[in-house]
Amino acid sequence: MARIPLNLASDNVTGPAPEIVEAIVAAASGPAMPYGNDPWTDRVRDRLSALFEREVAAFPVATGSAANALALASVVPSWGVVYCHRHAHIEEDECAAPEFFTGGAKLALLDGADGRIRADDLAARLAVAGAGVVHHAQPAALSLTNATEAGTVYAPSAVAELADVAHRHGLTVHLDGARLANAIARTGCTPAEATWKAGIDVLSLGATKNGALAAEVVVFFDPQRAGEFEFRRKRAGHLFSKMRLISSQLDAWLAEDRWLNWA
Amino acid sequence: MARIPLNLASDNVTGPAPEIVEAIVAAASGPAMPYGNDPWTDRVRDRLSALFEREVAAFPVATGSAANALALASVVPSWGVVYCHRHAHIEEDECAAPEFFTGGAKLALLDGADGRIRADDLAARLAVAGAGVVHHAQPAALSLTNATEAGTVYAPSAVAELADVAHRHGLTVHLDGARLANAIARTGCTPAEATWKAGIDVLSLGATKNGALAAEVVVFFDPQRAGEFEFRRKRAGHLFSKMRLISSQLDAWLAEDRWLNWA
Amino acid sequence: MARIPLNLASDNVTGPAPEIVEAIVAAASGPAMPYGNDPWTDRVRDRLSALFEREVAAFPVATGSAANALALASVVPSWGVVYCHRHAHIEEDECAAPEFFTGGAKLALLDGADGRIRADDLAARLAVAGAGVVHHAQPAALSLTNATEAGTVYAPSAVAELADVAHRHGLTVHLDGARLANAIARTGCTPAEATWKAGIDVLSLGATKNGALAAEVVVFFDPQRAGEFEFRRKRAGHLFSKMRLISSQLDAWLAEDRWLNWA
Amino acid sequence: MARIPLNLASDNVTGPAPEIVEAIVAAASGPAMPYGNDPWTDRVRDRLSALFEREVAAFPVATGSAANALALASVVPSWGVVYCHRHAHIEEDECAAPEFFTGGAKLALLDGADGRIRADDLAARLAVAGAGVVHHAQPAALSLTNATEAGTVYAPSAVAELADVAHRHGLTVHLDGARLANAIARTGCTPAEATWKAGIDVLSLGATKNGALAAEVVVFFDPQRAGEFEFRRKRAGHLFSKMRLISSQLDAWLAEDRWLNWA
Repeated sequence: MARIPLNLASDNVTGPAPEIVEAIVAAASGPAMPYGNDPWTDRVRDRLSALFEREVAAFPVATGSAANALALASVVPSWGVVYCHRHAHIEEDECAAPEFFTGGAKLALLDGADGRIRADDLAARLAVAGAGVVHHAQPAALSLTNATEAGTVYAPSAVAELADVAHRHGLTVHLDGARLANAIARTGCTPAEATWKAGIDVLSLGATKNGALAAEVVVFFDPQRAGEFEFRRKRAGHLFSKMRLISSQLDAWLAEDRWLNWA
Repeated sequence: MARIPLNLASDNVTGPAPEIVEAIVAAASGPAMPYGNDPWTDRVRDRLSALFEREVAAFPVATGSAANALALASVVPSWGVVYCHRHAHIEEDECAAPEFFTGGAKLALLDGADGRIRADDLAARLAVAGAGVVHHAQPAALSLTNATEAGTVYAPSAVAELADVAHRHGLTVHLDGARLANAIARTGCTPAEATWKAGIDVLSLGATKNGALAAEVVVFFDPQRAGEFEFRRKRAGHLFSKMRLISSQLDAWLAEDRWLNWA
Repeated sequence: MARIPLNLASDNVTGPAPEIVEAIVAAASGPAMPYGNDPWTDRVRDRLSALFEREVAAFPVATGSAANALALASVVPSWGVVYCHRHAHIEEDECAAPEFFTGGAKLALLDGADGRIRADDLAARLAVAGAGVVHHAQPAALSLTNATEAGTVYAPSAVAELADVAHRHGLTVHLDGARLANAIARTGCTPAEATWKAGIDVLSLGATKNGALAAEVVVFFDPQRAGEFEFRRKRAGHLFSKMRLISSQLDAWLAEDRWLNWA
Repeated sequence: MARIPLNLASDNVTGPAPEIVEAIVAAASGPAMPYGNDPWTDRVRDRLSALFEREVAAFPVATGSAANALALASVVPSWGVVYCHRHAHIEEDECAAPEFFTGGAKLALLDGADGRIRADDLAARLAVAGAGVVHHAQPAALSLTNATEAGTVYAPSAVAELADVAHRHGLTVHLDGARLANAIARTGCTPAEATWKAGIDVLSLGATKNGALAAEVVVFFDPQRAGEFEFRRKRAGHLFSKMRLISSQLDAWLAEDRWLNWA
C-alpha cells in the first residue's frame, strides 16, 4: 500500500482543538445512553435546527466518506446518476464509496474552472441524459462541494442557479460541506442562505477537517426524506454504541460559533 | 417509460436468419439435458476453441448487457475502475449493469475520435490513477468495443498497443464483440489475431445483432480465469434450464462461417 | 462443476410443446419492434389482465430465478427480510439470487409440514422480529410457493390467512407461481382467487416448467407498484431486444387455457 | 424508530476506562500522521503480534458491525454462505451488515444449546450443502462467537473441532471476539490457543464492550489474506483520517494486560 499523497493529508495533519478534546473527556464520563439516545446527539440536532433556521433531521457519523456515501444512497437508486465536478472528493478520494453504498449508481463528471460546475453545463448534460429511457442510468442527484476542492466558493446565487436546473429535472441536491464554514465566511451569507434557501436538500457537514478528531453529520432539510437513514447507517457499521464520542465533538464544534471561527 | 430511440433500435429491428430459427426448432425436440449439460453447449465451446485456435471457456447468455456485465464482474473488484470509451455501450446503453454486477465499480471514460481510444491517452490516464493508494478506486480493466459504437474498427495492432499499456498496469482486457465479425471482415485478420493474440483476455461475443434472436457468449481465453463465472451467471438469473434455446442459436451461427458472412 | 442433481432437473427434461415452438417461429418473422414494444408483449399483458380479472402490470423475463429475484427486489429494501419456507426455491436453488438483486436482504426460513408455512408460525416469528428497531433487518415480504416445492398446494383460504398476517405487519406478499396452474387445478379456484383475491401482491408466473422453452412473467396486481421494474430488469441484463422470443411463448401458453390444461 | 431494547444496550451503558480517555487525550496532541500511518496504529499491530505469538495483519475500525462485516466480506464471495449460530450477533443485531458488505452472501443458521454450535451439526449441514453445484449458494465461512451471545464459552478443543470440520470443507473460520477476553479468562488458555492454534483464520477483536469508547480491530493471522482489506475499509467509510483516535484506545487497552483484566 503506497503512503498517502500530500494533498490528501494536508487537511488532516493538524491536531484537534482543545475544546473538542475536552468535550470528549466530559462525554466519556457522562450518562451512558447508547446508540445516540443521548443528550449530546439531541443537542446536535437542536443546534443545527437553530443554525439553519428550520427543523432538520441530523445523523452523526465518523468520516466524510461515510457522510457523503450514506447521504447519496438515501436519495439515489442503484441505477441513478450523480452529477458532480470532475475533481469532486466523492469521485477522486473515496475509493468508490458512493458506488458501493448506492449499489452501483454512476457519477457523471462535469468540468468547470476552479472546481465549480456551471449551470449551463449541467443543463446541457441533463438535456441529453435520457431520463425515462430504460437503457440509460437515470439522473438522480447533483452533488456540489462548497468550498470546492479547488478552494473556491459558490455564492448562494450560484448554488441556487444550479439547484434550480437540478430540481427542474427531478434531481435531489446534495452538498458536500466538508468546508462549508469557509464558504459561509467568504460569501458573508447565513448557513440557511448557503444551503436550503439556495436549494440544497441534503448536506454532509464535516468537522473533521476543521478542529475535530472524527465527526461529521448528515443533515436532511426535509426530515421526511430521512426515513430510512438509520437503517442504512446501522447496516454500514456506522452506528456507534457510544455515539456521544462523535456527538460531543459536534456539540462543542457548533457551540459559540466555533465551527465558523475555526474555518 | 419513453419509447426506445431509433439509434438503439437500429440493430434489432431485422428479423433472425432462417438458420437460427431452424436450429431452435431442432433443439426444441432434441435431447432434454438441462442447464447447459447438452450437446449444443458443448459444441459451441468446441467451435469457439477451433475458431480462436486455442482451448477456451465459453458461457452462453441471452443478452449483450448480461454478457458484458458478467464478463467485467468476473475480472474487476467492486472498488475497481474499468477504462472505456466515452460512448461505449457499457457506459451509455446498459442502465448501469456493469456497476450493478460488479457491486459498484467505476467506468472511467476516455475520449477519442471515431469511437476509438488512443493508447497514449490510456497511458496518460493510468499514470495518474493512483494504483495502490487506498483513497482511489483501483485500475482493474480496459474494455474495448470492436467494431466500435461509431462503426469504426481497431486494427489488431491498435488493440495490441492498447492491451500492452493495460497489461503493463495490471489491467485485464475485455472486448465487447457485439460486432466483432465486422471488425474481422474489415481488417482481414483471423479471430485469434483480433482477440487473444492482440491481448484480449475476455470477450463478449454477440449474435443477437447479427442474425440470432437472443444469443451471446462470454469467452475466456484462459479458462483458468473463468472459475467463478457459473456462480455469477446463475445468481444473476442467466442460467437457462433449457440452455439449448440459446446454445442452438450460437451453434448454428458459428457453423459454416455464418457469423462472418452475415456481418 | 458438479452435474445437476436429479430433483432439480426433473421439471426441465421434457421438451417444449409444439404450440410454443410454432409461436416462436411465427414471432421470429413477425414485425421487429424491439425491447418489448411489440404486439406479443402487449397481448401477454392483456391476457393476464383478463385472466386475473383486473388490470395488471406484466413483465416477461426468461428464467424463474430472474422473475423471483426481480420481483422481490422491487418490494424489499436491502436491509429487509423475506419470510419463506425452509425449502423454498428462492432459498435452495437460486444461488443467492434474491440476496444479490436486493443488495443484501435476508431470507428468514420457516418450517412447515409438506412445504407449507403455517400462519401461526409466521405470526409468532413476526411478533419478535424487531420491526422498527435499527439493529435488526426489517420484515419486508412474505414469499409463498404454490404449488409448493413439496408438491402440495395452499387453498385460497390458507393463502389469505397467511397474507393477512403479513399485511398486518406491513409486508408485501409474493407468490412464486412456477407451478401455479397445478395449484389452481387442484383447488378448483379461479386465477384471481388463487392470487390477489387471497392477498398476493406480486406474482412470478412460470411457463418454463410447463411447456415453454424459457418464459416467465412478473405480474404486479397493483400496477402502481411496478414503477421501477423496467430499470431493474434492464440493468440486470434481462431486457431482451427481441423480447418477442419470450413474449410469443407466453402468448401461446396463455391462449386457449393451455397453461391450465398442460399442468 | 423504537428505542433500543435492554439486552443490546447492556454492554454499552458503562463508561470507558480512564486509561482509554487519557490515551485519546494524549494522541490528540501527538504527531498528526493521517490515515493510520501513525505510531499508535503500528503499536497496535506489534502488540497483537506479540500477544498472539505470530506476525499478524491488524486493521482498526470503530464498530463491531464494521469489524465483523469487513472481516467476512474479505473471505466470502457474494454467493457464499456463512454458517453461524442462530443467535449470533451477525445474524440478529447488525441489520444485515454482513449481507451488505459481502454483496449478498447468506447466513445459514445452526441451533445449539447455550449459544454454541456442535461440530456434528456443522458437519451434517455441510454434507448436504451442495458445494460445487451451481444452483446453491456456496459454503464459504464459519463464524463463531467466543464468549458466545449466551455468555457461554468454547474451549480451545471445541473451537478446534469446529474449525477442523470447516477447513475440511474449504471454509474460512472467523471469530467474533467482542468478548474474547472473557473466553480466555474462563478457559485459562493463551490468546494464541484460543484463536489461530485452534484454527481461527480471521478475528474481530472488540474493545468497545470492554472499556473503550469505540475501538475494534480485525486481525488476520495470515497477513497474506489481508490484501484487499484496506480498500474494503476505505470504500465503506471506515478509514479514519485521524486513525489515532481509534488506535490510541486499542494501544492503551492492549497494554499491561488491561484487555484481559477488564473482562
